[in-house]
Amino acid sequence: MKRIESLQNSLIKNILKLQEKSRERKKQGLFVVEGKREIELARKGSYKIASLLFVNSMIQDEYLDQFDSSELIEITQEIYQKIAYRESTEGVIALVEIKDHQLSNLEFSNNNPLILVAESIEKPGNIGALLRTADAANLDAVIIANPKADLYNPNVVRSSVGCVFTNQIAIGSSEEVINFLQEKGIAIYSATLQNSNEYTEEDYKGATALVVGTEATGLTQVWRDQATQNINIPMEGEIDSMNVSVAAAILLFEAKRQRKN
Amino acid sequence: MKRIESLQNSLIKNILKLQEKSRERKKQGLFVVEGKREIELARKGSYKIASLLFVNSMIQDEYLDQFDSSELIEITQEIYQKIAYRESTEGVIALVEIKDHQLSNLEFSNNNPLILVAESIEKPGNIGALLRTADAANLDAVIIANPKADLYNPNVVRSSVGCVFTNQIAIGSSEEVINFLQEKGIAIYSATLQNSNEYTEEDYKGATALVVGTEATGLTQVWRDQATQNINIPMEGEIDSMNVSVAAAILLFEAKRQRKN
Repeated sequence: MKRIESLQNSLIKNILKLQEKSRERKKQGLFVVEGKREIELARKGSYKIASLLFVNSMIQDEYLDQFDSSELIEITQEIYQKIAYRESTEGVIALVEIKDHQLSNLEFSNNNPLILVAESIEKPGNIGALLRTADAANLDAVIIANPKADLYNPNVVRSSVGCVFTNQIAIGSSEEVINFLQEKGIAIYSATLQNSNEYTEEDYKGATALVVGTEATGLTQVWRDQATQNINIPMEGEIDSMNVSVAAAILLFEAKRQRKN
Repeated sequence: MKRIESLQNSLIKNILKLQEKSRERKKQGLFVVEGKREIELARKGSYKIASLLFVNSMIQDEYLDQFDSSELIEITQEIYQKIAYRESTEGVIALVEIKDHQLSNLEFSNNNPLILVAESIEKPGNIGALLRTADAANLDAVIIANPKADLYNPNVVRSSVGCVFTNQIAIGSSEEVINFLQEKGIAIYSATLQNSNEYTEEDYKGATALVVGTEATGLTQVWRDQATQNINIPMEGEIDSMNVSVAAAILLFEAKRQRKN
């Protein structure tokens, strides 16, 4: 089993680089996952663990048994503190292989999938929150259109509390996503204040994509033009915008409610 | 009109203290609000502006006309940069008087109020998000039970994007809040996974308080014991918790939907 004792070790330097740089993650096809629960969810989601770094004194032998010994790398507490983000994690950090997120890879287990489309969301915390809600709603897929943040950004992974691994996720340009949905006969409901019906007036029992954009600028024109129906959540207060993950949750759970009746 | 040029000025030092210390805010009955929109919402919400500090070169004369000249204090750009949190704000910072948030002050304009109760929420960002959703839903009141964070914490004010001013807010211990709701004949729906019905099975058309707790520990026992009905949002994914502001939004907008039909 490998053991690393120096902060100057090239693998350790590379982990710091992978945490910081989206370009490196893409080039190497690797990203970093921290903590037992997140690593477990990554494995459950069929992500391949390239390496598992652990601090011997912080971990039980039985925990390590589930990994192939060729994947295991022992590190010192000092190195762990340098590369770990959270102090409370349990002495394990994994290098994990990035998945391919092509639209054509999406598989639906039923004829009336419920899909969330999020366009151009920038804040990692918002993407993480959307993925958490998508997990709770057990969506058939989450599609990220015109991505502005890398899905494997450490802040996305963290704020999703592992839901980046539990959802079926595809990524594409807005045009590609619209073509995909139209070819599959999936109705497009675009959340926008202009020329739209109240969200409670529509029927989401068929194959449905609920589409949300950024708080600042909303959805781009193409989503409003190509929508089966534009929908809005009435804003009855002083403020005219809603957090995107809150808006998505309201729409998704209305669809879930309808599907139960 | 007063003008302050020194960072050592006692008022400037006091503003920094008020931004940092909840105890000082309580003692002095003052807190700090930054930015034109937030200050406007504070005034609209009948908050009293004690002082308005402004950078002359960043502000139009007409803007200042709405304030009494005794409230106005000119400051230098250097001081502004020291006390302002956001770089993008517009050269205005106000000292505002704290309101009293007693339960007995709550006034309802109808017989079937819709109320959000949030117990022991710690993260300022979550309180801000709840207040934003409450504003959008035009709730009759938000009640904070067993507060763990000061409502006038700068992070609450900021993350609420001013909705701390647009909602009718009361604060009390959980016991006080339960007594208040029971005396007023307001049904209590406590969000909890244990011994609960799906939230879509209940009727929220009458006087209703929807009660949410922290993600980590949920509601305290007294809320579950004293509930008219415990309710849950079904979790169908791998993760068994939901962001509190997302959960509150799902419950509140289901109540809104029912009330429209």
